Amino acid sequence: MPKQVDILAQRQTIASAAVTVIGSAGLDGARLRDVARMANVTTGAVTHYFDSKDAVLEAALDEVVRRLLDKQAQTGALDGNVIDRVCAFLPLNAETREEWRVWLAFWGRAIVNERLRAIHRDYYATIVRRLAAALDAEGRLGGGRAEALADAIVAAVDGVGTRATLEPETWPPERQRETLRLLLAPLFAGVGDSQGG
Amino acid sequence: MPKQVDILAQRQTIASAAVTVIGSAGLDGARLRDVARMANVTTGAVTHYFDSKDAVLEAALDEVVRRLLDKQAQTGALDGNVIDRVCAFLPLNAETREEWRVWLAFWGRAIVNERLRAIHRDYYATIVRRLAAALDAEGRLGGGRAEALADAIVAAVDGVGTRATLEPETWPPERQRETLRLLLAPLFAGVGDSQGG
Repeated sequence: MPKQVDILAQRQTIASAAVTVIGSAGLDGARLRDVARMANVTTGAVTHYFDSKDAVLEAALDEVVRRLLDKQAQTGALDGNVIDRVCAFLPLNAETREEWRVWLAFWGRAIVNERLRAIHRDYYATIVRRLAAALDAEGRLGGGRAEALADAIVAAVDGVGTRATLEPETWPPERQRETLRLLLAPLFAGVGDSQGG
Repeated sequence: MPKQVDILAQRQTIASAAVTVIGSAGLDGARLRDVARMANVTTGAVTHYFDSKDAVLEAALDEVVRRLLDKQAQTGALDGNVIDRVCAFLPLNAETREEWRVWLAFWGRAIVNERLRAIHRDYYATIVRRLAAALDAEGRLGGGRAEALADAIVAAVDGVGTRATLEPETWPPERQRETLRLLLAPLFAGVGDSQGG
């Protein structure tokens, strides 16, 4: 069904453009015509694929989460220290800083929007479930419950990532990594050394 | 100078009202006439004391930070476990949930507003400096640097608080405390037991 694939590809192109526009202009400042220009399509194409600005925000958020879950799948398959892998989710470069800004824009609106809060809840449930499964499979639990540990890791990343997104000048990658390591290293001390592969 | 005091009191009344209105309607949905009604003043009084909606947001944020620093000063003077004291900053009740929603609204706007980011930077610098000084004075450092430890604690609180603010139904106080304890307990294990008073 090439037509269906085209629609999905077109929607994703527009969603990626929306990530960039929201990341740089914020949610209030994001204009559909800027999204269109960035996606190299007409404004009519944007309004054809998305009903409203909220729908574009949701698509941008979907795109950010898609990238995040892709990264989670990739890093999960890599050998190596859990903390180094978790650090990959911090706003360490221009692309991930942009994604974090979209994330924060989303939070600011989700506080009063039940639909966006439901999206948040579903995404975090997925992220935490996958992380918990990975920790469990790798024997990284150290006696803790997998979901509780995954909740803690996600909270640590969110806290460090938020601060670094809002204070990029004073939170270079190394300070982010050090802070995350300070929080997470004790949770994995001596755990997972016996794992195979 | 009673007149000056009156102005400050009036501004604080309006700022407190703004915390409530932004917390329930969000930043885009907050109307100055609702702030006025909540403060029991005229809309003219609100626009007399504040130039713009951004100024009202800043005042609401000032009010949230004022309460936070008050709480920090109070809990700092209390005896007791560091982690229990830190838990007091989580969104555990209606009042603190409201404050957290204002905080998230602020983040969502600060991503594209240099002035708000500067306010964020200054507030976090103050919060971290005071926390670091308290940890240092109490001999709670356990070999770590005071500022790095304070950064880590603030990040952990922000991460747990954000999640709980956006998913209040599934993050009751006990889940918040447990998650924060999981992150912070190892940092203070065996530290500070020898302190006086």
